[in-house]
Amino acid sequence: MEKLLVQKFGGTSVADAGRIEVVADIIAKTISEGHKVVVVLSAMGEETDRLIDLAKSIQTEPNLREYDALVSTGEQISVALMAMVLGKRNLKAKSYTAYQLGIKTNKMHGRARIVDVKVEKLIKQLDKGVIPVITGFQGMNEEGDITTLGRGGSDTTGVAIAVALQADECQIYTDVDGVFTTDPRICPKARLLDQISFDEMLELSSTGAEVLQLRAVEYASKHDMPIRVLSSFSEGEGTLVEEKEDMERPVISGISSIDTEAKLTVRGVPDLPGVAAKILGPVSDAGIDVDVIVQNISADNTTDFTFTVDQTDASSAEEILKETSESLGGGSIEVDDNIAKVSVVGRGMRGQSGIASKMFQALADHEINILMITTSEIKISVVIQKDLMEKAVNALHDTFQLDKNLDT
Amino acid sequence: MEKLLVQKFGGTSVADAGRIEVVADIIAKTISEGHKVVVVLSAMGEETDRLIDLAKSIQTEPNLREYDALVSTGEQISVALMAMVLGKRNLKAKSYTAYQLGIKTNKMHGRARIVDVKVEKLIKQLDKGVIPVITGFQGMNEEGDITTLGRGGSDTTGVAIAVALQADECQIYTDVDGVFTTDPRICPKARLLDQISFDEMLELSSTGAEVLQLRAVEYASKHDMPIRVLSSFSEGEGTLVEEKEDMERPVISGISSIDTEAKLTVRGVPDLPGVAAKILGPVSDAGIDVDVIVQNISADNTTDFTFTVDQTDASSAEEILKETSESLGGGSIEVDDNIAKVSVVGRGMRGQSGIASKMFQALADHEINILMITTSEIKISVVIQKDLMEKAVNALHDTFQLDKNLDT
Repeated sequence: MEKLLVQKFGGTSVADAGRIEVVADIIAKTISEGHKVVVVLSAMGEETDRLIDLAKSIQTEPNLREYDALVSTGEQISVALMAMVLGKRNLKAKSYTAYQLGIKTNKMHGRARIVDVKVEKLIKQLDKGVIPVITGFQGMNEEGDITTLGRGGSDTTGVAIAVALQADECQIYTDVDGVFTTDPRICPKARLLDQISFDEMLELSSTGAEVLQLRAVEYASKHDMPIRVLSSFSEGEGTLVEEKEDMERPVISGISSIDTEAKLTVRGVPDLPGVAAKILGPVSDAGIDVDVIVQNISADNTTDFTFTVDQTDASSAEEILKETSESLGGGSIEVDDNIAKVSVVGRGMRGQSGIASKMFQALADHEINILMITTSEIKISVVIQKDLMEKAVNALHDTFQLDKNLDT
Repeated sequence: MEKLLVQKFGGTSVADAGRIEVVADIIAKTISEGHKVVVVLSAMGEETDRLIDLAKSIQTEPNLREYDALVSTGEQISVALMAMVLGKRNLKAKSYTAYQLGIKTNKMHGRARIVDVKVEKLIKQLDKGVIPVITGFQGMNEEGDITTLGRGGSDTTGVAIAVALQADECQIYTDVDGVFTTDPRICPKARLLDQISFDEMLELSSTGAEVLQLRAVEYASKHDMPIRVLSSFSEGEGTLVEEKEDMERPVISGISSIDTEAKLTVRGVPDLPGVAAKILGPVSDAGIDVDVIVQNISADNTTDFTFTVDQTDASSAEEILKETSESLGGGSIEVDDNIAKVSVVGRGMRGQSGIASKMFQALADHEINILMITTSEIKISVVIQKDLMEKAVNALHDTFQLDKNLDT
């Protein structure tokens, strides 16, 4: 059966002319199997970094509108080269920038969100047998300025185009074989998953499994677009991310870990209604994503408010907090970047009691002290000391027997 | 008096971050003098070559649509960096690609011609005190594909924007001080001209003075837009290229020379009406520019047809000629790239007799044999043996006393 597939390839997959040929092999094979393909590409390997260095050579915090205009050239180079390579093989291919297709975003330069994708042009080309090769990671805002979606945004472009075209599947090619129960570099027993649900993938993405960009998974989940994560470096079916309400799932699907966050604490804030919003509002207004949030009331009616952000945002967040705390009559700000977050994720934990205590017991058995805890319906996260991360991941992988495929 | 100026800077002028700062100095100075400025940039120094190498690593003759999409990223990088640098100095600046402005061209990829420039967006920005920084060398065709104007096309972009905006002057910054009586690298006595007319500049451009791109001069002449050629590496007023019917001009303004052409001859073509068109038609259909053309009828009613093209086009032109000659019942094709063309240019030679014979005598005195001669109202060109070019230029520069400013 002919399928319409969106195939997205990341920076390592198109790092040089040789890699571009390998990717062209994959595309050509898919075409020869009778499918229609739309290709979405990231910038070549080091290209984005080269461009960022150029910008930084001018100013450490360059104007974001111009930054976007600059770095968006990276994908334009990839798509033009790929269209050349496909053309050389007598496949009809045409490169398109997001600008040419009119992929509309909001105006948040550097981390824009896609708001509209027009597909008339693409459908016309597909009907002519052309393979459109599209720049990921970018778009244009209402004023006609070039925007970028932020690092990893190419996944979102792939999904957004797949959704707009009502494609059968969005295939995200990367340098790993798919989604694993945990990071194989940390835990040698990690196992490749055949299938995972959107919400589990979301929790894994948001907790450090960097295979898929969080926003792309959200977008796909919202529009029920199946994503397949697979490797451009090796054969294999990868991992299918999709919604299947009736599927029997093991209790725990995977364990994620991340050590690139910093923990910020505001001490002794008066415990009044709206204080959380007052603290976090200015932080998110500055475009800083907040991850884990924990608030605890003390006996003296003040509260300690703690949250984590990406380490690169820590010092700006600290500055903002200082002002906020002053205006609220709060106390000092503490910043700690010597932390890691480890999460167990699994849809099966819904309605299963005892997962949390089993997790905490395992950590206790390995003398790992817990600094913060947050839970959701399908995830339990703990923040621990950074150097204990690997130990924690392996202990939990064993405890929940993730090396065994309990599906089969 | 406040002027509206278009300032165009070439690749060597923006070769690196340091050079971009120097150019920003020039722009800032112009702004501080109360003028409005629109900036047009080429790609940074070696960037275009880097991109061409990338394309060639895939295919020696890459798809031209994709080639344009690829190389057009070069200017996009320059303009974004320049806007950043200007912003750093608290000047309001915004980069624009030709695509964003809707600079329309015909569909001739790799050597497109500008057909329309919309300026509403630019005027709006200028009114807000913004300095628009625009990618030279490129545009978009009717289908919305990215096109490039061919090497040197940034000059044309500058002039086209100046014309559309009804600017007061289009300033072309380059790495030379202006237009000289002849190439100073060949003739040490060469003198910088304060002023030159469009038609003289046209003749100089078309005969190898590479200061300004031919098409840019044509465009400016047609729309009566003054061009000033000056250096971004040194102070000075440069050379003003403009129309001034009443100006007193010396007989000869300058001498140009070029040794990058090849001479092609078709022997023994039947001398019938339309034969020139039959020979040159297929050549120009292939997008090859023909320069000097000479035709001479032999006693036997056949004709020898000779013309010059750029050396890079010589082998394609030869192939085309072989077919044409066969179909016309003509003879063999001869190709000679061991030639140079030397021209004396001057509006003052109109109505002056004896310039040609003075020129030929000077060459004869230096034992330089003439292979071809063509003349126009304001130019006499000879094709000679390549290794005699320097000798010829110096001899003619002396003969016409170009080291002396006879204006003053």
